[in-house]
Amino acid sequence: MADHNFHHKTSPKTLAELIELSGCKLHSDTGAECVIEDVAALQDAGNGQISFFDNVKYKDDFKHTKASACIISKEMIKHAPDGVTLLISPHPYKSYALIAQAFYPEEYPESNISKAAHIDESASIGEGCVIEAGAVIASGAKIGKGCWIGANVTIGDNVVLGDKCRIGANASISHAILGQNTRLYPGVRVGQDGFGFAIDPAGHVKVPQLGRVLIGDNVEIGANTCIDRGAGPDTVIGDGAWVDNLVQIAHNVKIGKGCVIIAQAGIAGSSIIEDYAVIAAQVGVAGHLTVGMGAQVGAQSGVMRDVPAGAKVLGAPAVPVKEEMRQIAAVKKLASKRNSNA
Amino acid sequence: MADHNFHHKTSPKTLAELIELSGCKLHSDTGAECVIEDVAALQDAGNGQISFFDNVKYKDDFKHTKASACIISKEMIKHAPDGVTLLISPHPYKSYALIAQAFYPEEYPESNISKAAHIDESASIGEGCVIEAGAVIASGAKIGKGCWIGANVTIGDNVVLGDKCRIGANASISHAILGQNTRLYPGVRVGQDGFGFAIDPAGHVKVPQLGRVLIGDNVEIGANTCIDRGAGPDTVIGDGAWVDNLVQIAHNVKIGKGCVIIAQAGIAGSSIIEDYAVIAAQVGVAGHLTVGMGAQVGAQSGVMRDVPAGAKVLGAPAVPVKEEMRQIAAVKKLASKRNSNA
Amino acid sequence: MADHNFHHKTSPKTLAELIELSGCKLHSDTGAECVIEDVAALQDAGNGQISFFDNVKYKDDFKHTKASACIISKEMIKHAPDGVTLLISPHPYKSYALIAQAFYPEEYPESNISKAAHIDESASIGEGCVIEAGAVIASGAKIGKGCWIGANVTIGDNVVLGDKCRIGANASISHAILGQNTRLYPGVRVGQDGFGFAIDPAGHVKVPQLGRVLIGDNVEIGANTCIDRGAGPDTVIGDGAWVDNLVQIAHNVKIGKGCVIIAQAGIAGSSIIEDYAVIAAQVGVAGHLTVGMGAQVGAQSGVMRDVPAGAKVLGAPAVPVKEEMRQIAAVKKLASKRNSNA
Repeated sequence: MADHNFHHKTSPKTLAELIELSGCKLHSDTGAECVIEDVAALQDAGNGQISFFDNVKYKDDFKHTKASACIISKEMIKHAPDGVTLLISPHPYKSYALIAQAFYPEEYPESNISKAAHIDESASIGEGCVIEAGAVIASGAKIGKGCWIGANVTIGDNVVLGDKCRIGANASISHAILGQNTRLYPGVRVGQDGFGFAIDPAGHVKVPQLGRVLIGDNVEIGANTCIDRGAGPDTVIGDGAWVDNLVQIAHNVKIGKGCVIIAQAGIAGSSIIEDYAVIAAQVGVAGHLTVGMGAQVGAQSGVMRDVPAGAKVLGAPAVPVKEEMRQIAAVKKLASKRNSNA
Repeated sequence: MADHNFHHKTSPKTLAELIELSGCKLHSDTGAECVIEDVAALQDAGNGQISFFDNVKYKDDFKHTKASACIISKEMIKHAPDGVTLLISPHPYKSYALIAQAFYPEEYPESNISKAAHIDESASIGEGCVIEAGAVIASGAKIGKGCWIGANVTIGDNVVLGDKCRIGANASISHAILGQNTRLYPGVRVGQDGFGFAIDPAGHVKVPQLGRVLIGDNVEIGANTCIDRGAGPDTVIGDGAWVDNLVQIAHNVKIGKGCVIIAQAGIAGSSIIEDYAVIAAQVGVAGHLTVGMGAQVGAQSGVMRDVPAGAKVLGAPAVPVKEEMRQIAAVKKLASKRNSNA
Repeated sequence: MADHNFHHKTSPKTLAELIELSGCKLHSDTGAECVIEDVAALQDAGNGQISFFDNVKYKDDFKHTKASACIISKEMIKHAPDGVTLLISPHPYKSYALIAQAFYPEEYPESNISKAAHIDESASIGEGCVIEAGAVIASGAKIGKGCWIGANVTIGDNVVLGDKCRIGANASISHAILGQNTRLYPGVRVGQDGFGFAIDPAGHVKVPQLGRVLIGDNVEIGANTCIDRGAGPDTVIGDGAWVDNLVQIAHNVKIGKGCVIIAQAGIAGSSIIEDYAVIAAQVGVAGHLTVGMGAQVGAQSGVMRDVPAGAKVLGAPAVPVKEEMRQIAAVKKLASKRNSNA
């Protein structure tokens, strides 16, 4: 059960209610009136709790779960233990997410502007905002309605935030325009100068970074991630993109809609990640490249060329996953031969 | 000599005193009364100073050192120059650490709560704390005795810190419980939402992150490192673990006691790093894996499978170090053949 | 055109003026009196705007540009479209940088010490500084003339900043001395303890970190980069070095003059990067190594040995670029053979 010092649960709900909000169906005819009080992991769940199962690796946990109800796909029915009410979903994890949101809706504190926040008198603050102590909002900034600005956040001159944005503690933003319902986690850096200069032994010559960062609606940017502003063109993060922690996004990069960029990846200057592409952890994408729509780049890959739409690539330099697997196997075999000959 | 603007030295000590606190023995019968005033590196040390030598790479520095005394292992006696009093230790670097601590004990400022800190009236602050300007401590937080909270730190609702914790400037903590004598360096991010969502082209669906971060006693977390809170289970950092800068620790990860995680490594969700394992710099460990007790993962490795206890692995994908070395050699030979045939 | 909410343009200039400040020559006899109002990218530029072209990848953009003038090298004259006044430069990107600086000079706000900054009375603040809200400057710190200290910055005891330094929002500095005209981007961490301890199952023993961080003149340090202070020796960043975002620089490292260290690279303890070396993105350099003057280390490389001056290396472990290319080709061929035999 979630620690109520940190997470606040709403009231119990019938399975009928949960089914309606999550797009599931009951596997059998009975159980709709069953009352559920909480969500829990398979191995922790007990009476009155609902869980989900969609990774065969955890099959044993499913077989022994004490949960009252469990969300699964049709294919998993055969693994089901007795005594658990089954909710069938085409997307069990999504259904679980919706149910967990119902039990633990996101909480915003009551609207409140801390007296210990420092807000320039020329900044405009929408209705219903929370602005915590130590936040600094500079001249001309425009903060939408219902935004939550965390403690010790810094927002620079003329920055624009759409409605319902949430900026985590100690983040900083400059030279940027954010859409609605976009969230920056603690320590995010948005809008600083890109890494642009003409190399010169007499002293590198800085190229003024004259663009902005444009971030769409419903975007999440992970903790301590850095997004530099454009050099002339803008750096752009599309609607619904999710970016994890400690990611580097260089100047002029365009991230498409719904992209997923996982922790510690880096996208070099002027590259384009098209809609719904997935860039896994610790990947590097070199500059001036395009990763096509829906492409998937495996963890730690080094992308040195354009990646076609829909392709799955891996390795450094990144090649199609099957090719990389063949290369790994070939090297393994080669090394074992050499060894047996030695 | 250390710059006294930044580091404050205690009074001189006899070798007899230093031997007692560091677990060394004098190599010869004389010298116990020798007065030592400071520690120094081999090549910088002079009269009245003590150094240590345990890396043969620096043998020449040892041979020419002007230090009055030097801590070494028995095996290094043969390299010793004349005129240096030798202290023999089974663990020279540890002995040096203890002696350096005696000359430069950690300094805490006098207890003081800055008037420019913003502390919610429902937070509890233990005796003897230092809380610097700009620190923000939210409602219900419990700060132990003798803690040192740096400038512009943000501590969220109901966070608990054990006694003698030290939180570096501009760090932020939420949804977390810390043990005693644990230290976060500047810019650390603890407790923000993990990267959990159901992928959906219509808009990824956020999975509420209902766990916490539990950090044990005597832990050190390096600058700008990120530790996300659990999705349901907690994210756990064991007693005495040391984590370097810019490390990513995802939701539900368990780091065992005494583990060492070096800079820019990343541990993906739900993986377990057992006690005393060492994860070197820039390593990636994929999700849902176990790195066994005392295992060592070499720099830049990509861990794609469980690593057995005590194993030493390297490469991407990570394999036993010897196997990786064979693969590297095999590829090198293969390439040189191709070249000579070309 | 740059968004004037974020970037302020100076008045129009003749090509004659721009030629003088940028070291270009007019390709033809006419055009010196042409009035230029702004800089722009090739594909965006229009009448009254100047652009540059030095990457053949963008040849088509050059052919179709509507710019009034364009800076190119002699070699590119053959690609030039009609109607564009050509400025010939030996270093087109540098010339562009100088012209862009003339249109968009760096702006400093008027000198102002925010009442919401917290400055210890023993700190000294040079003339003409800007110190923003929430900045905390501790006892004994010395801030040079004309420095700009951003919001929520933390500067520790006795830190020294030369004239005209600029410290980005939410950065923190301790145990450090900075030269003149050096800039730290938001979230930079300078001067915290290095990762030094004697491993011990009974509890790792911390080695006091008794050095400092010394940063030269005209240095730029990217957002959320971490530079630990030395263990005894100092950590040193040479004049004119440029360091990108999210870089890890460990204790005792020496970075030479004019070096370029790109995003997410990590330099382990006590290594030396000599003058003008370039360390590309996501590189790891192991400890106690030397990367020689002017050497170039390709992206994602793992440097396990000293790199000679002027060498170009790539791969993990890093080898000369040509050798790495041969290895990649050899493995590719090997894998395709195995496949065709399968």
